[in-house]
Amino acid sequence: MMQVIILGSGNMANAILTSCLNTDVEILGVFSKTIENSIALAHKFKTKAYLTISEIPTNADLYLLCVNDDAINQVANNLPIVEGLVIHCSGLKSMSELNIQTNQAVFWPIESINKNTFTDFKNTPICIEANSEENYRIIEAFADRLSKNVNKISSVERQYLHLAATITNNFSNHLITLAKYELDLQQLDYTILKHLLTKAINNSFNFEPSKIQTGPAIRNDISTMQKHLSLLQNSNTKDLYELMSKSIFEFKQNKHA
Amino acid sequence: MMQVIILGSGNMANAILTSCLNTDVEILGVFSKTIENSIALAHKFKTKAYLTISEIPTNADLYLLCVNDDAINQVANNLPIVEGLVIHCSGLKSMSELNIQTNQAVFWPIESINKNTFTDFKNTPICIEANSEENYRIIEAFADRLSKNVNKISSVERQYLHLAATITNNFSNHLITLAKYELDLQQLDYTILKHLLTKAINNSFNFEPSKIQTGPAIRNDISTMQKHLSLLQNSNTKDLYELMSKSIFEFKQNKHA
Repeated sequence: MMQVIILGSGNMANAILTSCLNTDVEILGVFSKTIENSIALAHKFKTKAYLTISEIPTNADLYLLCVNDDAINQVANNLPIVEGLVIHCSGLKSMSELNIQTNQAVFWPIESINKNTFTDFKNTPICIEANSEENYRIIEAFADRLSKNVNKISSVERQYLHLAATITNNFSNHLITLAKYELDLQQLDYTILKHLLTKAINNSFNFEPSKIQTGPAIRNDISTMQKHLSLLQNSNTKDLYELMSKSIFEFKQNKHA
Repeated sequence: MMQVIILGSGNMANAILTSCLNTDVEILGVFSKTIENSIALAHKFKTKAYLTISEIPTNADLYLLCVNDDAINQVANNLPIVEGLVIHCSGLKSMSELNIQTNQAVFWPIESINKNTFTDFKNTPICIEANSEENYRIIEAFADRLSKNVNKISSVERQYLHLAATITNNFSNHLITLAKYELDLQQLDYTILKHLLTKAINNSFNFEPSKIQTGPAIRNDISTMQKHLSLLQNSNTKDLYELMSKSIFEFKQNKHA
C-alpha cells in the first residue's frame, strides 16, 4: 500500500484523487492554501484536510504537488524536508524545481482535465521521471496503479511533448471554435463536422500526417482559397487561414526539396 | 432500382462505386477522359467503360459527375442533354454549374476520401439539394441508400460547410504534422498524443468549444508561451503559434465584451 498526500485543490488534484479511488493507494490527506478548498476536497474524498502546511506529516510515501507551474518551487521549499517522494505534475517545469527535497519525481498525465467529465487515467499516457533508480521504481509503481500507459520521459523531452500537446490539442479546439463561429452566423449546426474530424484524427495518427494532407492549400488551389477567404467574417480567422495555407504549401516544398 | 452512370475516375468515383456495392443501385457504366482509367475502373467494379462521352446512354436515372470543381461546368456542357438527374459532388461549387441540364442535383459527402482506406458512406453526413421537389426526392432516395445521415443543404450553406471542413479537417492535420516535425527532431514518438487528441475532438463537439478552451493562450500565460516559442525549430510554426495564441485570447475578449 502507498500512502499519499495531495497538495493543491484544482483539476489535477481532483483527477488524481478520483483515479486513486478503487486502488490500494491510501490518501492520508489534502492541503490547499485556501482552507475552504482543503475542507471541501477532504469531504468529497473522505480524507483529512490539513489546515496549515506545518500540519502535513513528514512520513508519507508520496507528496503530489498539484499546483500551478509557478507555485511548484515555492511549495516544495515551504514543505518540510520529507522522507517520502516529492512529485510535481507539470508538463513544462523541470524536475529541478523540487531540488530542495531529497527524493524528487515528476508525474505528468497527457490529458486535458475537465473536472466535470473526468473519469480516470486508465488509458492516459503518463510521463514519469525521478532523481534516482529507487525513486523511479516508486513513481512507476504509483503510475502503474493509475494507468496502463506509463512512459519514462526526461524533463527536456517532456517540454517538447507539452509544446506538441498545446499545438495539437489547444489549437485544434480553437479551429473548431472559429469554424463554429462562421457556421453559427449562417445558422448551421457545426456538429455535422464531427464525423469528419473524428476520422481525420485517426488518419493523422494511423498514417504519416504530411503524406495525407488534403485541401486547397496543398494543391495550391488559389481560386478555392480566395473563395474561402471571401466568406470568412472573423479577421483573425482570415489571417490564420492564409498563414496555415502558406505553411501547408511550404512544408511540402521543403520536404521534397 | 436506380441506374447510375459515373463520370470521373478519382477518389470520389471510387468511393461512390464502393458504396453502391451491396445496394440495389445498378452501375450502368463509367466514363473518364483518360480511357485507361475508364477501363481499369470498369474492370474493378465489373461494369462497362464508355470510351467517348458520346457513347454514354441518355436514359440512365442518375449521372454522377465525380470530377474536379473546375471541370464540372465543362463536363455538364459536353454531356448530351439527358433525361436523368445530373449531379455534381463538390462542396464549393453552386448547383448552377449544371444549368445546361434540365434535372440538376448536388451530392456532397462531408468526408476526406482516401482511396486506400475508404469503406463506405454509411455514417457520413451527405449534403444534397436539387432544382425541383421531384428531383430532390430522387437524389434523396439515392443518398438514403448510401448513408444514414442525409441533409438538405443549399449551395450557399454548402460553401460555408466546405470552408468549415477545410479549417478544421485540413488545418488540424497540418497542426499534427508540425507537432510531429518538432517531436521527430527530439526522437519522440508523436503517437503518444493520440489519446489526448481523440478526447479533445469529442469534447469540442460535446461542449461549446470556446468554453472549454485550455492552454497558455487563454490564460495569457506569457512565460509558458515564450518557453514554447523558444523550443520551436520551424519558423512557420512559430508564426502560427503566435497568431493562434492572439486569436484564442482575442476571441475570449470579444465574446465577453
